[in-house]
Amino acid sequence: MSEKMLHWLDKQAELMPDGIAIEEPGLMSLTFKELQTASRTFARRLAGKGIGVENKVAILSDNCPEYIVAVHAISYLGAIAVLLNTRLSEAEITWQLADAKVDFVLMDEVNKGKTESHKWRSQFSNCHFGEIGPEDNAVMLKREIDLKEGFTLMYTSGTTGHPKAVLHTFGNHWWSAIGSMLNLGLTHQDKWLSVLPMFHIGGLSIYLKSVIYGMPVHMLRKFEEKAVLHAILEGGVTIMSAVTVMLRRILEELDEKSCPSSFRCMLLGGGPVPKPLLEKAKEQSIPVFQSYGMTETSSQIVTLSPADALEKLGSSGKPLFPAQLQINEPDQNGEGEIVVKGPMVVSGYYGNVEASHKAITENGWLKTGDIGRLDEGGFLFVLDRRKDLIISGGENIYPAELESVLSTHPKLREVGVVGLPDSKWGQVPAAFFVCRNESLDEQELVQFCYEKLARFKRPKYFFEVKELPRNASGKLLRSKLVEIAHEMSRKKR
Amino acid sequence: MSEKMLHWLDKQAELMPDGIAIEEPGLMSLTFKELQTASRTFARRLAGKGIGVENKVAILSDNCPEYIVAVHAISYLGAIAVLLNTRLSEAEITWQLADAKVDFVLMDEVNKGKTESHKWRSQFSNCHFGEIGPEDNAVMLKREIDLKEGFTLMYTSGTTGHPKAVLHTFGNHWWSAIGSMLNLGLTHQDKWLSVLPMFHIGGLSIYLKSVIYGMPVHMLRKFEEKAVLHAILEGGVTIMSAVTVMLRRILEELDEKSCPSSFRCMLLGGGPVPKPLLEKAKEQSIPVFQSYGMTETSSQIVTLSPADALEKLGSSGKPLFPAQLQINEPDQNGEGEIVVKGPMVVSGYYGNVEASHKAITENGWLKTGDIGRLDEGGFLFVLDRRKDLIISGGENIYPAELESVLSTHPKLREVGVVGLPDSKWGQVPAAFFVCRNESLDEQELVQFCYEKLARFKRPKYFFEVKELPRNASGKLLRSKLVEIAHEMSRKKR
Repeated sequence: MSEKMLHWLDKQAELMPDGIAIEEPGLMSLTFKELQTASRTFARRLAGKGIGVENKVAILSDNCPEYIVAVHAISYLGAIAVLLNTRLSEAEITWQLADAKVDFVLMDEVNKGKTESHKWRSQFSNCHFGEIGPEDNAVMLKREIDLKEGFTLMYTSGTTGHPKAVLHTFGNHWWSAIGSMLNLGLTHQDKWLSVLPMFHIGGLSIYLKSVIYGMPVHMLRKFEEKAVLHAILEGGVTIMSAVTVMLRRILEELDEKSCPSSFRCMLLGGGPVPKPLLEKAKEQSIPVFQSYGMTETSSQIVTLSPADALEKLGSSGKPLFPAQLQINEPDQNGEGEIVVKGPMVVSGYYGNVEASHKAITENGWLKTGDIGRLDEGGFLFVLDRRKDLIISGGENIYPAELESVLSTHPKLREVGVVGLPDSKWGQVPAAFFVCRNESLDEQELVQFCYEKLARFKRPKYFFEVKELPRNASGKLLRSKLVEIAHEMSRKKR
Repeated sequence: MSEKMLHWLDKQAELMPDGIAIEEPGLMSLTFKELQTASRTFARRLAGKGIGVENKVAILSDNCPEYIVAVHAISYLGAIAVLLNTRLSEAEITWQLADAKVDFVLMDEVNKGKTESHKWRSQFSNCHFGEIGPEDNAVMLKREIDLKEGFTLMYTSGTTGHPKAVLHTFGNHWWSAIGSMLNLGLTHQDKWLSVLPMFHIGGLSIYLKSVIYGMPVHMLRKFEEKAVLHAILEGGVTIMSAVTVMLRRILEELDEKSCPSSFRCMLLGGGPVPKPLLEKAKEQSIPVFQSYGMTETSSQIVTLSPADALEKLGSSGKPLFPAQLQINEPDQNGEGEIVVKGPMVVSGYYGNVEASHKAITENGWLKTGDIGRLDEGGFLFVLDRRKDLIISGGENIYPAELESVLSTHPKLREVGVVGLPDSKWGQVPAAFFVCRNESLDEQELVQFCYEKLARFKRPKYFFEVKELPRNASGKLLRSKLVEIAHEMSRKKR
């Protein structure tokens, strides 16, 4: 059985040359043929810069059509696309560029300042990705895709230390698209709304589904509830990927109106959804599909259909057809670590054998670190996110990472971080710190975080404490921190 | 990337335990959970007969739900299902049983006579496949499917000599189902009508799509136009696989009525469709998808959508997303042999290295033997079926096979066979024979064929000639035979 196929974009340009691939309402649209031409041209320009097989090309850009052109272009060269989170601080970006051994960086106008101090600086102004230089017309662009080969690389924070580089093969993306299609179905009327960042798997995967399915993507550069509603009510959008905070804002904007029946799926990632929100969504005909997944599973791997949404409240659903899920070493209540397996699960972290071995077993099971259980119907309930994970507006934040950054402040002895509930973002990080000798002004810490951390990661609350609560063996008791936060807030009032 | 997944039926029974898998209107229906239970029970019964990994279990049965139960049961044991064409003669069946090294034969009441003289005789009366014996409860049924492993084996006639055994892996079937889904789409309303024989790839593949998609199959044991129309008009059927002769009979039966819009696809295989038939189908809202494929491609690999059906008259469409197609060594008109590649294309013939090497290149390209060309839009036009293939009512007949059988008649010197047009079956075989010394009564030949050949293969016309038309190098000129047939028919009138 061959694991090769024609390059997806070439194939779709052959099947549906005039089909719309990407449309940005009122601004532009690209057919599959046009997307192919743009991507192949851009690939030849990259080749002119010396980019070829297995080079790493980073993209640091806000959402724009050229982003997707660049991703396809990189694939035509057999190079790897390293997708950088634009919300990261300069220090964080610099670390990732070095860790991934990036050869070349593509930037848009807005984000180019972020690596100004850096040797990776290259040019593309105003998102005109074509301005990088002349084409190399002699280069042989890849005609076939090998599903086993690497395609994209994204960083994901872990429970300890530095972020890890998740390397997706073409096959990982392919099987994710196929698994999703088997679950959600596919019609020739489908149009997927994209508002999530393209540097996250949830955003990127829409554009790969687009070329595999032959489906148009309705692109919005950023989330704006009015524009989203317009796309759903007037733009023919049938499916949308979103996070909880977006659903809330859409429902508020929708007011008393209902969604049209043509809008058949809101695929919701990034943590559980409160019941009142689900009920309101149902009232207003928004078909919410809750899901569970992570960068390592190439987007959702478990999904709950709207039919079950209220009855199975709090569940993430069942694993996609090509996926398997088990609870490792369940306790008497059936609770244990969620482990998943399947061709959409990556086989390891780039350049990090230790982390790969730790996370993925020989048989391909990924240990998610999340705690869950399966009910008698086989529905997954995620009980506890992997080691203290904070999910804020759909972004994952690991306390360990913040603690290790804050601990480098010379005036601090130790730091503990937890997530506190937040009505807008779901959760926000709070930092508890113990000073060395002299006391510390909170403003000083805010400034310190400003330099070192992406905005979404910066603690919203700082609490000075005499010591951190620990158990006998010295392990930080984060649940205790949450209690302390509540107590101190009460006192303040 | 893992190529393993949960056994499809186990997985679907987990996802949709109460979803309908197979329904036989007015007679029975099976949910995925029930189909799973029946198949696992039957697997344990087969295990009780000693069947296990890599054994070959043949099925010789008319269409019935137990057929599908048996196929899944065989897969649970890691054995291979050998699907026998019930239309074959006893001699033909006996040859295939021996060639495939079959260990065990499952038969229904109607067909069991066909191997009565044979050691492979086993029992299952009245299609109650469960009656073969007690269960082996100790057997470990397969929990995972490896896409690389063999699953089913079907015989297909070739241009020379004996039929060849096509071994489909799980992966071949999987990718065929996925390729079809990417082309036709999939909705939760879909229900596929099955009337084709289950021993043909076109019939079997519906039931494999069923467990992969979670889609009900509306099963009819045989083609009967009233029942088909009832299924479409009243039974909620949305898709149907058919051959041209069926379309003609459905259109006649439909009279002036139209098909409901819920019926979204008639997937038509087995040769080109005459334009008047296509036009009539369009008038009566039957959305015909013409297709091109063969047993070796695990069903259709090229499909033409109704939108293009009339404009691209005579075309078979474009290759499915995971498939590739080329014209080998095209002449100045772009005409040459059609070669195809993709993960739904088998990698060889079972136990026949020579035929495998001849048909499939090292890079996985299957040489179909058919002649075709691609137009500027990439649409395939099949110009000439592989070496003189006769397609009669959807069944493939090879002249070479008939010639080699007829030549064994002691009174015949030589025989040439061609297809002649037939208003009902599309084509029927005609035999031209040269006698040795004494002349031969046609009835004698009819009787001879009755014993040696499946009914659909038996020549409908016999013409005695003095010699067969051959070119200088002795090659039989079949086109000349067609001319002779016309001439002789004229004379008879």
